[in-house]
Amino acid sequence: MATKEHSGDGGCDQGRSDQGVLAPVLTPFDRDLSPDPKRFVAFSRVLAQLGIGLAPFGTTSEGNSLSADEKAMLLEALAAGGIDMSRVMPGTGTCALSETVRLTAQAVKLGCGGVLVLPPFYYKGVTEEGLFRSYAAVIDKVGDARLRLYLYHFPRQSQVPLSLGLIERLLKTYPGTVVGIKDSSGEFANMEAMRKAFPGFDVFTGTEALGLKMLRIGGAGIISANANVNGAAMVELIKRWRDPEAEGLQESLTAFRVATQDFPLIAALKALVARATGDQVWRITRPPLVDLTIEAEDAMVKRLERAGFPV
Amino acid sequence: MATKEHSGDGGCDQGRSDQGVLAPVLTPFDRDLSPDPKRFVAFSRVLAQLGIGLAPFGTTSEGNSLSADEKAMLLEALAAGGIDMSRVMPGTGTCALSETVRLTAQAVKLGCGGVLVLPPFYYKGVTEEGLFRSYAAVIDKVGDARLRLYLYHFPRQSQVPLSLGLIERLLKTYPGTVVGIKDSSGEFANMEAMRKAFPGFDVFTGTEALGLKMLRIGGAGIISANANVNGAAMVELIKRWRDPEAEGLQESLTAFRVATQDFPLIAALKALVARATGDQVWRITRPPLVDLTIEAEDAMVKRLERAGFPV
Repeated sequence: MATKEHSGDGGCDQGRSDQGVLAPVLTPFDRDLSPDPKRFVAFSRVLAQLGIGLAPFGTTSEGNSLSADEKAMLLEALAAGGIDMSRVMPGTGTCALSETVRLTAQAVKLGCGGVLVLPPFYYKGVTEEGLFRSYAAVIDKVGDARLRLYLYHFPRQSQVPLSLGLIERLLKTYPGTVVGIKDSSGEFANMEAMRKAFPGFDVFTGTEALGLKMLRIGGAGIISANANVNGAAMVELIKRWRDPEAEGLQESLTAFRVATQDFPLIAALKALVARATGDQVWRITRPPLVDLTIEAEDAMVKRLERAGFPV
Repeated sequence: MATKEHSGDGGCDQGRSDQGVLAPVLTPFDRDLSPDPKRFVAFSRVLAQLGIGLAPFGTTSEGNSLSADEKAMLLEALAAGGIDMSRVMPGTGTCALSETVRLTAQAVKLGCGGVLVLPPFYYKGVTEEGLFRSYAAVIDKVGDARLRLYLYHFPRQSQVPLSLGLIERLLKTYPGTVVGIKDSSGEFANMEAMRKAFPGFDVFTGTEALGLKMLRIGGAGIISANANVNGAAMVELIKRWRDPEAEGLQESLTAFRVATQDFPLIAALKALVARATGDQVWRITRPPLVDLTIEAEDAMVKRLERAGFPV
């Protein structure tokens, strides 16, 4: 959940009541490749009704394939569409400081529970000092005490990792503002190290395969691509992770993930939404991504069926 | 040079008269980290008067650290400042298709000789088909016969290489529109392969260390960071590469490059401009880059002096 309660120090007790699931909401495009706010709001509403928080403009959302104007338009549409913005944590991190500031300020103004901020990712091999200054400049320029900033660590995609040293410095300088992280490294050891080093720091796993393990060490929850299509099962795990059936719930989440992971994930998820809704426009991705081929879709559907997930 | 003459087939004769040097123009920032159009236009004018073409919003320009609005504003400022836009080749490639279309269309409208277009660089491991569709969508949506598009191949930074297969397909589909490339791989073999495979295709080397070698095989010229501070010497090489003194000119270019290459290059170049102009604001970089330390600057200045370049 991207809620303000998260910014406390309730993480270490392993019994926090504010853990949650967020979906990096898929972005629907029209045939002319422009984003479609109507389908976007409708789909967001379905997710929200399932108890899933919304993390639009993430990697799975093709967020970086959208212009700042398009992201601003879509976020306005969510607010105008009656979505509870305290459950929304948009991705606002871009390569350009001014753009990140603009989108972050808009999110705060619209009452978003938090923002999920990639580091600027064009330059590789940048210094910890440079990354600190990036985040510091965003926070200082937004200049709003309501800001709740979650870091986004996705080294394989961004090629710009966020070190523990950087996080420590940010937490010391901006307590109550820098409040958590989405860790998409897939490395449990890194998530565990953050839980130990930074009490009260919200650590979301980017893969639901580590969901139960993370909940058991006081993790804040799951922000995963598959929450777009299998989020209800993740919500169930969050509710019942202390119960005997938790292992079974986790096994099911992992089985779903394994069945989809060998396919181009974003196109695959869009194909699943198209099948579920009967709305073929959902298949469209923006370049440089390409839509799923029929062959790949058939293979994925078979794998899901064999794993016990008829689609 | 980013001129329309480049789009012909004059490359292979090794005697073309339209070879040139372009500088990825450094972007001056004010103390509040906003770009400064006045200093930008003034500096661009100095470069242009030295016979150097302008490639603003490149890697050295911190182009990806600027928002689309900022880039649009700076390009307008160049045009309003009386710069010959036929000698301007702005970087217009971003992660977002819509933003790339907007900036490319603006460049065409302002009469730019060309545009230099990075592939979308957030997603890694994308397909050749996806990259083809990216460039195709930009060209189709701009929809202007005046467009002269140069590809930008910088695998180490973008992590998204452009293959010969992709180039071949683009050249077949968009002859006269896709007209050249800046190759910042530093690999002569790749540049040579493009010269051989695609007659008339303008291949600019991203490193002046390969300047003479490239000119000898009909390369289109040099687009290099150091052209911001050592561009006149590059122009001299272009003029005299068939003369006996060419080897000496090349040695000097390479010596300058070697003297600066162990320092954070963009900050180093900005420090050199600050020293040359006496205007200390030039030192400012936008995060995630950091300004050059005094120690690094001293070391670089000593190296340059030892190499015969007093600064």
